[in-house]
Amino acid sequence: MVKKVLKFGGTSVGTSERIQHVAKIIKKERSLGNKIIVVVSAMAGKTNELIKLSKEISEEFNKREMDVLLSSGEQVTSALLSGALTEIDVKAKSWLNWQIPILTEGEHTNSRIININVEKINEYLDENGVAILPGFQGISQKGEITTIGRGGSDASAVAIAKIFNTDSCEIYTDVDGVFSTDPNKIPVAKKIEKISYDEMLELSSLGAKVMQSSAIQTALMYDIPLEVKSTFTERKGTKIFSQENIDYSKSVTGVAYSKDDAKITIIGVEDKPGVAANIFEPLSKAQINVDMVIQNISSDQKTTDITFTVKRDDVSRTKQILKDDSEISYKEIIHNNKVAKVSIVGAGMVSTPGVTYRMFRALSDEKINILAISTSEIKLSVIIEEDDTLKAIKKLHTIFDLD
Amino acid sequence: MVKKVLKFGGTSVGTSERIQHVAKIIKKERSLGNKIIVVVSAMAGKTNELIKLSKEISEEFNKREMDVLLSSGEQVTSALLSGALTEIDVKAKSWLNWQIPILTEGEHTNSRIININVEKINEYLDENGVAILPGFQGISQKGEITTIGRGGSDASAVAIAKIFNTDSCEIYTDVDGVFSTDPNKIPVAKKIEKISYDEMLELSSLGAKVMQSSAIQTALMYDIPLEVKSTFTERKGTKIFSQENIDYSKSVTGVAYSKDDAKITIIGVEDKPGVAANIFEPLSKAQINVDMVIQNISSDQKTTDITFTVKRDDVSRTKQILKDDSEISYKEIIHNNKVAKVSIVGAGMVSTPGVTYRMFRALSDEKINILAISTSEIKLSVIIEEDDTLKAIKKLHTIFDLD
Repeated sequence: MVKKVLKFGGTSVGTSERIQHVAKIIKKERSLGNKIIVVVSAMAGKTNELIKLSKEISEEFNKREMDVLLSSGEQVTSALLSGALTEIDVKAKSWLNWQIPILTEGEHTNSRIININVEKINEYLDENGVAILPGFQGISQKGEITTIGRGGSDASAVAIAKIFNTDSCEIYTDVDGVFSTDPNKIPVAKKIEKISYDEMLELSSLGAKVMQSSAIQTALMYDIPLEVKSTFTERKGTKIFSQENIDYSKSVTGVAYSKDDAKITIIGVEDKPGVAANIFEPLSKAQINVDMVIQNISSDQKTTDITFTVKRDDVSRTKQILKDDSEISYKEIIHNNKVAKVSIVGAGMVSTPGVTYRMFRALSDEKINILAISTSEIKLSVIIEEDDTLKAIKKLHTIFDLD
Repeated sequence: MVKKVLKFGGTSVGTSERIQHVAKIIKKERSLGNKIIVVVSAMAGKTNELIKLSKEISEEFNKREMDVLLSSGEQVTSALLSGALTEIDVKAKSWLNWQIPILTEGEHTNSRIININVEKINEYLDENGVAILPGFQGISQKGEITTIGRGGSDASAVAIAKIFNTDSCEIYTDVDGVFSTDPNKIPVAKKIEKISYDEMLELSSLGAKVMQSSAIQTALMYDIPLEVKSTFTERKGTKIFSQENIDYSKSVTGVAYSKDDAKITIIGVEDKPGVAANIFEPLSKAQINVDMVIQNISSDQKTTDITFTVKRDDVSRTKQILKDDSEISYKEIIHNNKVAKVSIVGAGMVSTPGVTYRMFRALSDEKINILAISTSEIKLSVIIEEDDTLKAIKKLHTIFDLD
């Protein structure tokens, strides 16, 4: 008998009809003899609706009450899905965060699941019941409602899979799986059948919105096999597991891109030891995430230009912090919001020589100017002009045999 | 220092602006030095929205899950109101049914509050905090979410006032108070300043929708002074307390009406002992509520005609039950759906002779035919043709000096 976590995202449970459809998927899984724990998100749009209400009342809405407010969303879905299962003669029960309980630690709106009482739910599974659990939430040691951040239902599902020691964790969503690149932009994008946690992590953090990064991290840490699949088709999804289980025939698994980056250049910084630290320390303190950094010697050879990328939302704050900091002397700060980050990801890259060269050559053939480069073992990212994004993805998708 | 329960209904908290307005009312009450427990309903429309979703999934939605589903409504309001209070520097905290806990007994969707743990909340009130509690819900001894029936937030407020031994319980709503008759229909309707529990009960059960009957009953039983007032004006509301505290200058306090009654007549019933029991026993078993009963000798003097009223929704079921019952012999069953019940209510009626006569005379002057009569110590109801309702209310309102 196989024990599974099935997680359904917001669009999968967005209407009563969809909830009834999800109930049928669960009934089918039950009929195969599986023990099933279901984790649900709030119905699509509900969380945003609640956040909007809170913002109308206060831009800095009390965080404790924000958790009380938002946790109601998954409560509604849990009850509706459990009712839909009962209606089609599947024994089912919703369990709320405090009824289980799901214990968390950390701040309100940003907690982490640390423990779940498995006893009562395991008993219920043994009696052939389907347990419906709300994603995204828990309670603190003090008995306060907590949530674990936007998109946290994925993290809940993986934590629940780990603590219940299930055989798999299936993430049902509104796409067929993980694609070699965005199928909405590049029609020849192909669904990836198997991918490693590391690659998936890179793709997620680079803008692929299929699964939340922290959930993949947890799965990697505890080696929990994941499967991302569509609620709306019966097609096979994408399996995510550890690298050693994957036979790499291709050096590159996917091409990702993001358009929320900006490039900042500080021109004419005095070239002396410690200058980089002086620049990046105040940014780090202000929780500004600096992505790529490039340092060039300036034409006069006594000063240097430092270029780095941050999220576009952080540009004006970043510039202000640098201006306010008396430790840094420079000529000018310029920025460019019209850039995009395009990345190739693949666990096979390390063992395949020339991937870097082939990427640069391909972009050069297309007359695309590379503004910055960053590499890791399984990823190669470049910053280019935003207008070149589509051309770059298409070209890279083709030359790395992903079409 | 006065301890108060302030209860806010669905329309009072129907938008974020209204919730902010309610927060201001609470702040003002706090500034007068009062200790405040707030009880909230779900935002107007939310409960119906959730019920609609459940009905789309199943006409007989699982009752346990219905309670989980619906209780989310008051949770949302509690969090939003608490956030709104924090925003204007009033110390406040939402407490959920299981955090207090509010213990209930009875069936799902129809439970009663039996106990509330007062300790933590009293401590919080002593620290000058405003405690926000969700109406309409609780948890069972087994730790399951329960609700106490539609409109149950009033009942919650009164139960909380009783268990916390507060000095008063103020019901904030979208009308200025209790009126001598429906102010939407009869513009000369006057707000009643003081009314007894009994009169209020009669008015509620006769169709005045200001407060839920079971809540008034609880207030009567434990002598909890109530005040019904508007969230949107600063006018004085209606005070509801025990009869001995009211000085009755008028015999009649109010005129109520309802339009959901129907009249059924069984013609030619054999006139022998036990016949009434034979008729009404099966109806009672089928949970059909029979209101007024009149028995006349028929023209042939061996049979009798029996007339009674039931809710319109129950008419066809009632007729079917009577037809299926072999114990009853009769010639014919007829019914009339186009009737209304008009009632005068007043604790002063008992001590004022001639009220009955004056009512009948007034209706007769207006050429209104009385189809059935029912009396109690503080109420006199008649069934008339539905088309005459407005004329009847106006006339009665005038002759009993209510204009």
